[in-house]
Amino acid sequence: MLQRLKLLRTAMNEQSLPAVLIGAASNRRYLSGFTGSAGWLVITQTEALLLTDSRYVIQAGQEAPAFSVRQIVNPGQPLPQRLLEIAGEQGLKQFGFEATHVSVAEHARLAEAVEGQLELVPTEGLVERLREIKDEAELTVMRRAIALTDRVIETVTARLQPDHTERQAAWMIEQAMREGGAEGPAFPIIVAAGPNAALPHHHPGNEPLGANRPVVIDMGARVDGYNADLTRTIVLGEPDERFWTVYNTVLEAQQRAIAGLRPGLLAHEADALARDFIAAAGYGEHFGHGLGHGIGLDVHEGPALRWTQPGGTSAPLQPGMVTSIEPGIYLEGWGGVRIEDLALITPDGCEVLSAAPKLHEKNR
Amino acid sequence: MLQRLKLLRTAMNEQSLPAVLIGAASNRRYLSGFTGSAGWLVITQTEALLLTDSRYVIQAGQEAPAFSVRQIVNPGQPLPQRLLEIAGEQGLKQFGFEATHVSVAEHARLAEAVEGQLELVPTEGLVERLREIKDEAELTVMRRAIALTDRVIETVTARLQPDHTERQAAWMIEQAMREGGAEGPAFPIIVAAGPNAALPHHHPGNEPLGANRPVVIDMGARVDGYNADLTRTIVLGEPDERFWTVYNTVLEAQQRAIAGLRPGLLAHEADALARDFIAAAGYGEHFGHGLGHGIGLDVHEGPALRWTQPGGTSAPLQPGMVTSIEPGIYLEGWGGVRIEDLALITPDGCEVLSAAPKLHEKNR
Repeated sequence: MLQRLKLLRTAMNEQSLPAVLIGAASNRRYLSGFTGSAGWLVITQTEALLLTDSRYVIQAGQEAPAFSVRQIVNPGQPLPQRLLEIAGEQGLKQFGFEATHVSVAEHARLAEAVEGQLELVPTEGLVERLREIKDEAELTVMRRAIALTDRVIETVTARLQPDHTERQAAWMIEQAMREGGAEGPAFPIIVAAGPNAALPHHHPGNEPLGANRPVVIDMGARVDGYNADLTRTIVLGEPDERFWTVYNTVLEAQQRAIAGLRPGLLAHEADALARDFIAAAGYGEHFGHGLGHGIGLDVHEGPALRWTQPGGTSAPLQPGMVTSIEPGIYLEGWGGVRIEDLALITPDGCEVLSAAPKLHEKNR
Repeated sequence: MLQRLKLLRTAMNEQSLPAVLIGAASNRRYLSGFTGSAGWLVITQTEALLLTDSRYVIQAGQEAPAFSVRQIVNPGQPLPQRLLEIAGEQGLKQFGFEATHVSVAEHARLAEAVEGQLELVPTEGLVERLREIKDEAELTVMRRAIALTDRVIETVTARLQPDHTERQAAWMIEQAMREGGAEGPAFPIIVAAGPNAALPHHHPGNEPLGANRPVVIDMGARVDGYNADLTRTIVLGEPDERFWTVYNTVLEAQQRAIAGLRPGLLAHEADALARDFIAAAGYGEHFGHGLGHGIGLDVHEGPALRWTQPGGTSAPLQPGMVTSIEPGIYLEGWGGVRIEDLALITPDGCEVLSAAPKLHEKNR
């Protein structure tokens, strides 16, 4: 945590922010360790304060040893008074706030209460950019979440039958995760059978998995706050030739992306590693989402590996980023194939963190 | 849905708003029936439009028959263009937006894009105030969620043993909910044993429930989008005298609140019904949260039954509100007791909707 605070203070210096107010839950947890649902961090170059209400004071003291915990009566209401007190103590005239996480109404109340005494400066992505690079403590937890996810998909898919419904399969997966020690699923589990597999965000329903057709399963375990994300496309029975054509195109696209990921590559260039191959195979219109996304305390974080507007650019990959690599092809009326692994960007390439077997490794 | 739109239009008229833009998920669902994760409603006195992206167009058409569905390419990005188009069609110069749900950054981008053409007017609570009063369709679903919650707590607590951990107990509850037909838990289930019960929002861990000490269980099922919320404090084994003293104080406080709830009572007066009794018994400092909260599509909605600042006031209760009634006493190092039921405000009092037995009904 001390290293994270140090990096934040460097970023604050670069933006000439003497103090910042952090309220977004994942950012608060990342910087402090505090897991409660309500509270604000106030960070200056010398101070690290955690303001929370009576429900969480004891817990905050235990979880956030690098912070001084101060009680506020009610999260929100007396915050302006607390900020003014702290500004007075520290001789501050400006506070940065998270413009993507503070609502217009919340900001208006805060600004009115501190008017003439404190300037509120909007910032975006200050903590999120730090979170893109995982430290060793984070990677240790993420490897556990990923290993559990691998075990779950392998054990559950071995038990699936064509007459199981999508919903039953999703619940089998969720139970196996929880019994394996996950806090819960990282996101609502997707099980999409047959034509439903053409919808990348299908919600599991009463459709049976069926035989000889694609079933897309997209799931991940959350362990100690960190998320995994894995997609396998399976077939119960015999895949046909059309399936293998689509499947092998997606697989090859993924392998090209894995072979090409390295520090310095721009995020939209990473996307192109897979997209260009899929487009050349004639399926360009059927890969409607980006290649991948960063993941950690949130399921979707930076970097976003996706195409940009013509002439646009994106940020370079850096060692320590963990991103999904999930090309897909979706054919309305038939179904779809998506294959997703997580990878860590290393100094000279990437390390694939997911280890669950893929269909072709078992089935052909 | 048509009645809800009519009430919204009346509220818009009262605030001289010719059009509103609704993006908060629960408000969107309440007004339209649409359950997707992304989309905007645009509502005028004569039009009801639902803007969503390609993932959700078919679903939106099925779920929201009172709305005209229009596709946007990407949720967020082309919204300003769409709003300008609609404003042009309808001859509108002003749009209300939800100031409590739109971030400072999102607002800044939207305002910049429509500058000089459309005025964005902040509104607060426009839909939330309608949602405080449940209609018959909502009450029917809520009664199902509450009945399932009652069944689950009763069947699971009958199976609990002192060597079950908090986490195991929470998982048994969650499984029973899901197998009983819930979409999921309304919120992360709280099981807090012994001294952990002194933390109103304890996260279940590896602590065994243990014998002869308080265990607070706070849980609720979500059914068709609507949430239940129930707390029982149990003891596996023999409660001691201190426990009964605390328990009976909380129980009596709850019963006084139930006896006193009626339309016209101000929310902070409702809180005082329980709080004054707990304070008179010497535990005033140990009841750190409000008496209750409205519940429906969100777990925490209006009305907030809590104390106000000295001289402050609050809104009157109205028939059709559904609120939790959940006094508690928390003693650091020992544990705590909370008892929570949901109640519907009726024309002449309240109807307790929860029916799960309480400890004293089984144990003494």
